[in-house]
Amino acid sequence: MAEGQPRSVMHRLRRALLGAPIPTSKAHHERLSPLLGLPVFSSDALSSVAYATEAILMVLILSSQAALKEQIAISVAIVALIIIITISYQETIQAYPSGGGSYIVASENLGPKAGIVAGAALLIDYILTVSVSVAAGVDSILSAVPSIKLHIPDATVTISLFFILLVAYANLRGLKESGSVFAVPTYGFILSMFVVIGVGVWKTMHTPAGVPHVETGGLVGKEATVGMLFITLRAFAAGCTALTGIEAVSNGVPAFKAPEQKNAQKTLIWMSSILAVLFIGMGYIALGLPTHYNDFRLVDSASPRYLTLIAQIAAFGFGKSTSFGMFQVTLWFTAAILILAANTAFADFPRLASLLARDGYLPRYLSRQGDRLVFHNGIMVLAVLACALIVVFQGKLDALLPLYAIGVFAAFTLSQTGMVVHWLRERHRGWQKSAITNGIGAFLCGVVLLIIGYTKFAEGAWLVMVLIPLFCALFWSIKKRYGSMTRQLEIAGQPKFVAEGHLSLLLVPRVHRGILNGLDYAQQLRGECQAVHVTINEKTLPELQRMWDEFGREVPLVVLPSQYRSLISPVLDYVDRIREDRPNLMITVIVSEAVSTKWYQRLLTENVALQLKNSLARRKGVVVANVRYFLN
Amino acid sequence: MAEGQPRSVMHRLRRALLGAPIPTSKAHHERLSPLLGLPVFSSDALSSVAYATEAILMVLILSSQAALKEQIAISVAIVALIIIITISYQETIQAYPSGGGSYIVASENLGPKAGIVAGAALLIDYILTVSVSVAAGVDSILSAVPSIKLHIPDATVTISLFFILLVAYANLRGLKESGSVFAVPTYGFILSMFVVIGVGVWKTMHTPAGVPHVETGGLVGKEATVGMLFITLRAFAAGCTALTGIEAVSNGVPAFKAPEQKNAQKTLIWMSSILAVLFIGMGYIALGLPTHYNDFRLVDSASPRYLTLIAQIAAFGFGKSTSFGMFQVTLWFTAAILILAANTAFADFPRLASLLARDGYLPRYLSRQGDRLVFHNGIMVLAVLACALIVVFQGKLDALLPLYAIGVFAAFTLSQTGMVVHWLRERHRGWQKSAITNGIGAFLCGVVLLIIGYTKFAEGAWLVMVLIPLFCALFWSIKKRYGSMTRQLEIAGQPKFVAEGHLSLLLVPRVHRGILNGLDYAQQLRGECQAVHVTINEKTLPELQRMWDEFGREVPLVVLPSQYRSLISPVLDYVDRIREDRPNLMITVIVSEAVSTKWYQRLLTENVALQLKNSLARRKGVVVANVRYFLN
Repeated sequence: MAEGQPRSVMHRLRRALLGAPIPTSKAHHERLSPLLGLPVFSSDALSSVAYATEAILMVLILSSQAALKEQIAISVAIVALIIIITISYQETIQAYPSGGGSYIVASENLGPKAGIVAGAALLIDYILTVSVSVAAGVDSILSAVPSIKLHIPDATVTISLFFILLVAYANLRGLKESGSVFAVPTYGFILSMFVVIGVGVWKTMHTPAGVPHVETGGLVGKEATVGMLFITLRAFAAGCTALTGIEAVSNGVPAFKAPEQKNAQKTLIWMSSILAVLFIGMGYIALGLPTHYNDFRLVDSASPRYLTLIAQIAAFGFGKSTSFGMFQVTLWFTAAILILAANTAFADFPRLASLLARDGYLPRYLSRQGDRLVFHNGIMVLAVLACALIVVFQGKLDALLPLYAIGVFAAFTLSQTGMVVHWLRERHRGWQKSAITNGIGAFLCGVVLLIIGYTKFAEGAWLVMVLIPLFCALFWSIKKRYGSMTRQLEIAGQPKFVAEGHLSLLLVPRVHRGILNGLDYAQQLRGECQAVHVTINEKTLPELQRMWDEFGREVPLVVLPSQYRSLISPVLDYVDRIREDRPNLMITVIVSEAVSTKWYQRLLTENVALQLKNSLARRKGVVVANVRYFLN
Repeated sequence: MAEGQPRSVMHRLRRALLGAPIPTSKAHHERLSPLLGLPVFSSDALSSVAYATEAILMVLILSSQAALKEQIAISVAIVALIIIITISYQETIQAYPSGGGSYIVASENLGPKAGIVAGAALLIDYILTVSVSVAAGVDSILSAVPSIKLHIPDATVTISLFFILLVAYANLRGLKESGSVFAVPTYGFILSMFVVIGVGVWKTMHTPAGVPHVETGGLVGKEATVGMLFITLRAFAAGCTALTGIEAVSNGVPAFKAPEQKNAQKTLIWMSSILAVLFIGMGYIALGLPTHYNDFRLVDSASPRYLTLIAQIAAFGFGKSTSFGMFQVTLWFTAAILILAANTAFADFPRLASLLARDGYLPRYLSRQGDRLVFHNGIMVLAVLACALIVVFQGKLDALLPLYAIGVFAAFTLSQTGMVVHWLRERHRGWQKSAITNGIGAFLCGVVLLIIGYTKFAEGAWLVMVLIPLFCALFWSIKKRYGSMTRQLEIAGQPKFVAEGHLSLLLVPRVHRGILNGLDYAQQLRGECQAVHVTINEKTLPELQRMWDEFGREVPLVVLPSQYRSLISPVLDYVDRIREDRPNLMITVIVSEAVSTKWYQRLLTENVALQLKNSLARRKGVVVANVRYFLN
């Protein structure tokens, strides 16, 4: 780039904010070992323990304290689900060494329609990942330092928006998914959670249990059983948010060191194991907490503040303290890994959007990498949508969570089904085992999807169930429009255009140096040339005519009266009249403009060229050429 | 105008709001008799009694009740001033049958510098006329129906802004200054004021006077005398707002029926007489009001509402009533004539701004009449500034009034001084009488100007005293800039530009029908032609090359690599490189664009032409030609 050339203020501002452009040749990814791969790909999955267990307990505790007993069964079911999906995705990693995202797997094996459903579901889920993770992260911070609420109005929303914009900005600058940078918060979170859960488990075993008397909540007999089943399923559905992000490793196989697939599989197993342990551990302690700790997310008796479940568990083990200690460390690491999870979505959403755009389902500019080598359009779209969700739902996790997970499980189901088709087609040695594994995965994910859709429908899942088909319809119509554009732009089969010559119209408001510049230009064009003057004040006409006779180099001058004092309309009308007579004539309207270099000096002149260009925009075969004469 | 042509949404919205365009041939003014001339030109002057007497009393009553005695003397002084200025302006009408505004009289006789001082002073005053009149009108409405305040938040500001925008809108549509329409509120106001004042005077004569015991307010001896003098002068200065608008008739002489000057002079005498009678009458009753009516603009004891002086006088004669009656009629007529006064400024400000623009002191587009035959730019500027004043001063008349009148008297002084010079030059028969009359006028206006500037300085007059020179400096620098532009655009004396030929660069992102359209166009241009392709993805290059070989009609293809994936920078760099070698070459960059007709379809494509045009904006001798290919 010729940096010596004058650049606009906007351009310089852009450079200052985003940094110098990065050449395409610098595009590379560090190759990750499982140790560094874990931080890069697991923040989304691991961070979900910050809200999943709590979400289960919220459902159970609100229906009846008795229901809390079901919590163990639900936790076991979810861990089983984690194991099955993990095994299932081992197969995907094996089959798609170049990355097997749900959109690709579904498109390739089930056809484009299934592909765009998976794509729509995932895009919605990535938006929710940002909103949910950031809101949960802010909850964690507010649990750590509740006094923040006194100083910042509407603290949850304000801080959430701040973090979304911060992460978006970092990604616009081209933040790399760096294993070593991500390692600190991820391993810090894992370690502090192990300590907190370990101490919690030990303490629970030496404390009287907090489960109160059994209350059936008014339901008896068969009704009670049906009611209980629904509540249990709803709690299970709530807990399924723990599985969001588990597919991340399978998307990123090429990022691993050789042997890529082996390392990816190893990382996935490690991640799932840690997730299962954290999840089971938290569930165990939550039930064993003394009664006064049991009112999750209700006002803490000691001070008017909400505490997240992780905060309560940490407080149970180490006490609450606003000074440095295990309580603070745990909550800040929790916040950090949640913000990292949002950051993951800022890599995934634009990448998926670019795939969809490349295939013609979204506007093509979403597939263009900006000068910082990032999909800047996708990043900005995601930031706007995630911020909108935070504002609409006032940053309330309880309101956002029911929307979450449904997109994930729709994508899981399609992806696993696609894998079954893949194995049926390929039929390599031992294909039966792979097909059965993925078949079980697909079936279970489908069942979970139905459970989530059914039990959370009224709470908000309906919105996602409406949005996915709407997105698909949008994708489909964009694809159709691009197809129509391509056909219309095809060279073969179109009637040959025969230009019936060319006419230049040089606008002459007055006769000055800039106009002569325009005349110079007009003489570089072939065909006829006319000078056109729009007259508002008849009195100035003779002088203009005289000047033109002297300097107009024999070009004929057409005078157009302007009944309504507009400089634009008479030109439009004149052009229209000419085209009526000679429809295939090409017309160039030359606007000579004297341009000042300083913006405040430009306030003294009207931009007639721009107005004229906009007015002529819909007329075929008319080109506006803006010849500038520079003043100092 | 060819209405059959497609028009933009903006255009249609404009037509719906403002109505069809009005041809220049329809520009005419009705010729006014004195009877209809009075309503058109007197609203500004007459309506000022709504705040002038009150302003005097506010100053006096706030210093000491004793000072109230001075009110009679001040009223007499102001009536004397009205008479002298009226006589003085009779001379102006005689000398300038085509309209003798202060800007014209001062420019012609005292030179352009005095002219722009008068222009600046008047522009500022017209802005204040709008703000002050509308705020006083709203005060009158709120005195009539105080309960409005309970229903509209921030009632004074909200309703004031509403009226300013309403009047601005009416003027944008091209409201005519129609004598018969304006007659109703003006004569209604005069009549109701005569009734109210008549009844008030009769009642005052039969009621014990409300002037309380003499209190000197802490000042004794010489100090008391000096303090009293200052207070009296300040009250006098406050009362001078009654004279604003008195010059209106002299500006509008050509609007009268023949004999124009005679009729204008007759109208001016009538207006001044009515003004003097209303002013003296209100002053007399105000002093005679019972004590409990004497706390002007303070909370009325009966209900928590502010009453304007006119409201108190009307209530004194006819009692307060929210149902139809003399009290309501008077206040609503007062509000109406005040809004009319604001309307007058909406005619005067754009007209003066257009004169200044025509002379090169303001951007020229302020002198352009829009398609409704009005100076739309001036109207919008005035509306914005008047609204800003209302918001900044929270619609408070007490805060706005000290800024008012200083501009008027500055303009009066310059105009009358200009008249003296005029007579000294002309020396027609009996010139001595005219010169002496205007000399006295000029001297008195100058003295009043000093009094206003001195006594109201701290209250806000300083702001106007700072703004007038700032405006003048702005006018002067605009004039200078236009002068410099004209010199630079002069044809004689400039070196003859020698174009070293012409080069067309046709951008070829892909090869399609639209590009061939661009190629058609390129072949209408003389000189060399090159096709330019910016390559981001090397893989698509061979196919493009092959297509160009087939359809490119032998035009050579230049391939530019894009290190930073920008489509713009490589073109800029290429253009810069060519121009380095051949600085006087003319270059046309042809951008072929496939354009969809529906706006939502256009969302699918980037506007590269616009980006390129903005980027090339500062490069000399480069023209961007945007060839459009229309899709359906």
